[in-house]
Amino acid sequence: MRRKDLLDLQSLTADEIVYLLETAASFKEIVTRPVKKAPTLRGKSVATVFFEPSTRTRTSFEHAAKIMSADTYSLAAATSSATKGESLKDTMLTLDAMGIDVFVIRHSFSGAAALASKYVPNKSVINAGDGTHEHPTQGLLDLMTIREKKGQIEGLEVAIVGDIAHSRVARSNIWGLHTMGAKIRLVGPSTLMPADADRLPVKVYTDLTEGLRGADVVNVLRIQLERQDAAFFPSVREYAKLFGVSHDKLKHAASDVTVLHPGPMNRGVEISSALADDATISVINEQVTNGVAMRMAVLFWLMSATNTISGG
Amino acid sequence: MRRKDLLDLQSLTADEIVYLLETAASFKEIVTRPVKKAPTLRGKSVATVFFEPSTRTRTSFEHAAKIMSADTYSLAAATSSATKGESLKDTMLTLDAMGIDVFVIRHSFSGAAALASKYVPNKSVINAGDGTHEHPTQGLLDLMTIREKKGQIEGLEVAIVGDIAHSRVARSNIWGLHTMGAKIRLVGPSTLMPADADRLPVKVYTDLTEGLRGADVVNVLRIQLERQDAAFFPSVREYAKLFGVSHDKLKHAASDVTVLHPGPMNRGVEISSALADDATISVINEQVTNGVAMRMAVLFWLMSATNTISGG
Amino acid sequence: MRRKDLLDLQSLTADEIVYLLETAASFKEIVTRPVKKAPTLRGKSVATVFFEPSTRTRTSFEHAAKIMSADTYSLAAATSSATKGESLKDTMLTLDAMGIDVFVIRHSFSGAAALASKYVPNKSVINAGDGTHEHPTQGLLDLMTIREKKGQIEGLEVAIVGDIAHSRVARSNIWGLHTMGAKIRLVGPSTLMPADADRLPVKVYTDLTEGLRGADVVNVLRIQLERQDAAFFPSVREYAKLFGVSHDKLKHAASDVTVLHPGPMNRGVEISSALADDATISVINEQVTNGVAMRMAVLFWLMSATNTISGG
Repeated sequence: MRRKDLLDLQSLTADEIVYLLETAASFKEIVTRPVKKAPTLRGKSVATVFFEPSTRTRTSFEHAAKIMSADTYSLAAATSSATKGESLKDTMLTLDAMGIDVFVIRHSFSGAAALASKYVPNKSVINAGDGTHEHPTQGLLDLMTIREKKGQIEGLEVAIVGDIAHSRVARSNIWGLHTMGAKIRLVGPSTLMPADADRLPVKVYTDLTEGLRGADVVNVLRIQLERQDAAFFPSVREYAKLFGVSHDKLKHAASDVTVLHPGPMNRGVEISSALADDATISVINEQVTNGVAMRMAVLFWLMSATNTISGG
Repeated sequence: MRRKDLLDLQSLTADEIVYLLETAASFKEIVTRPVKKAPTLRGKSVATVFFEPSTRTRTSFEHAAKIMSADTYSLAAATSSATKGESLKDTMLTLDAMGIDVFVIRHSFSGAAALASKYVPNKSVINAGDGTHEHPTQGLLDLMTIREKKGQIEGLEVAIVGDIAHSRVARSNIWGLHTMGAKIRLVGPSTLMPADADRLPVKVYTDLTEGLRGADVVNVLRIQLERQDAAFFPSVREYAKLFGVSHDKLKHAASDVTVLHPGPMNRGVEISSALADDATISVINEQVTNGVAMRMAVLFWLMSATNTISGG
Repeated sequence: MRRKDLLDLQSLTADEIVYLLETAASFKEIVTRPVKKAPTLRGKSVATVFFEPSTRTRTSFEHAAKIMSADTYSLAAATSSATKGESLKDTMLTLDAMGIDVFVIRHSFSGAAALASKYVPNKSVINAGDGTHEHPTQGLLDLMTIREKKGQIEGLEVAIVGDIAHSRVARSNIWGLHTMGAKIRLVGPSTLMPADADRLPVKVYTDLTEGLRGADVVNVLRIQLERQDAAFFPSVREYAKLFGVSHDKLKHAASDVTVLHPGPMNRGVEISSALADDATISVINEQVTNGVAMRMAVLFWLMSATNTISGG
């Protein structure tokens, strides 16, 4: 199937994911090279259109695009409930008419990237996070990092820890890991579990020790302190005590357990500072490097004359 | 005459406008090409210096510059009545000394671009909107779009609808259309007509139906909701009812009427959403594409070793 | 010694400073050329990470980097006392992992650039101003401008006038001028003198006329009106009267006195508008041009395979 957009991981086939993992692995060499420049996307225009602020994701996409010699444009937009629908539509139509080729969209509404895609039927849209729905390039870079570390994804026990209900990173991880054959555990307070957890290909644990027992990989989600409502969990301090991941909490995990975090971290809340800095276990900086390589792979895939993946 | 700046359309000759229309038409092919890159302005530096925010105009200029391989710099500046004079002067002197070649200026004070030009006698200034004075590249892209659609501009009946008094887009349209031989109508409530309307080469209509009768082209201005003062028009709702342009209101216009809007639109206020999306009548997205091509033409013109237009 | 960073001028040797002055002088020709582009840093990535806003310093660095064909990334960050430590660390680790090669850091805390450098042991950090500590590229561009004007620096009488206590520009000037053999005077109200003035290689003057007598060079510091605390000087008006530098105040200086100001100026406060615009005395715009050339030299130096300076 010809893909014009990357909107989610739920609809990607295993062949497509493997293609992206292998392409990103080959591009990673460019990211870590002293001279980082390839002419692949020369004369292409990539716009980051962020209705929610995010310096690191925006910079990662811009860097991926610039390494491949694309021109980049950065647009920060405000959303208000009154104007959101129209402003997304007219923003897309305008940038399309200017000749922008790829739109990297972040928006606080689930489904915004898919909606944006409909307004630009001849251009590519990459979802860089839409509400609580998905953040597919984060899911892909997590898969890439796990595969690098473990050799394969199939059969691994992967625990995702945190506020699953509100996490688009968790959603993209669930679909990508499931397609690649991992066994998935969601770990967190019951109040932070998604309402549809029983229809997801996961096991739910509300006790951290149980959830981490025998885990090969632990993906620790960021607690979004700015979103927290005092009502749904007693307190940040209580959360840190019960669900903060540390060396001590990992003692029943697999002996070669790998820890991921999408960043930015709240050290001392969802992850201990010592664990974050322990390069024998944590691969947080590797995730960042892989993020650039994976975004290069996604841009390359969508911009290729034909991006049909055999078997996809 | 050697032009170093583009400050207004009032002082441009017909030959100069025709040159820009023809240059922009030839550049348009580059904007819509899969690989958008020309080496024309390699090693040149273009700074957008915006004392008023405008994502779309800034992005259009940056895109035009980057397609031609120029480097771009974006400076957003705040104005306060106390510091405005000095800050404009020292900003211009500093950027001049850094080696910036072209300044794209937007400012809330009429005449700011001309003032800025005096501070940098060896550099080019492009007015991207100064108070209620002019927005010449918008006027030029409107002329380009009308000419594409109608084959010529001379003799056309063009209605400009809206808050003429506060619109720099209207001013640039009036001068450009007049020089190119169109017949111009200003349509809007009498309270939104410019005080000097009787000295402009226009006919004034305070009734929309009369103003649109037989019109070949209708240029619908954006109502700047954020500027509106309740005192000068009863209400936005009242304005939309009396002066909002829709399919119904166009029934007495020419059968092949063309509708322009400079964007961003307030759908349902100055233009109906159905009309905005009707590609048989509206050329709003074409204006955006032409905007990039025209800004390329203006940059090319001002940067050429000699830009004297024969007969100009 | 191999330098990976430029954190201050205090630790630079005379040979290193001379190398930078000569490299910058040769790069200046590129800045003033019609086509400003050299392939020197193609494929390198330079990020400006500014925890304090500064359009002109950021633009100067970006321009220097782009002229040398580097890719640039601009990150503005907010600091709060609660998160400052961690946010600097994680920001540096993340950008390092993305493959950024050079970090240009501005921060309100003295020592922030040195701290940032420790987090990225394999990358270069350039201090673009840290609290009241140093602003070394400003010091270097001032030295370059003085040397251009006077032929040499050794033996010159240089007066630095203003709020010395809070000025990182003053600190970098003191160390650079001292290393190059100038005689340094600090001129300002005693309340604005640094507490450690008696341990610096300077003479202190609290009377402007005395401080300027026979001076070859006067470097007028910007009064940071936004920082001023009414308690430490009677008033801005009083300051302007007693310490504002003007043609009249310069009458006892050397007949060929040269005046510098780091910009942006408060005309009529620390410097008279007439003096600022008098190109026979003031070299303020030359400083700006030299700033771009010097930043090119610093980038080139730190990026060179080996940057050991003979004798350094």
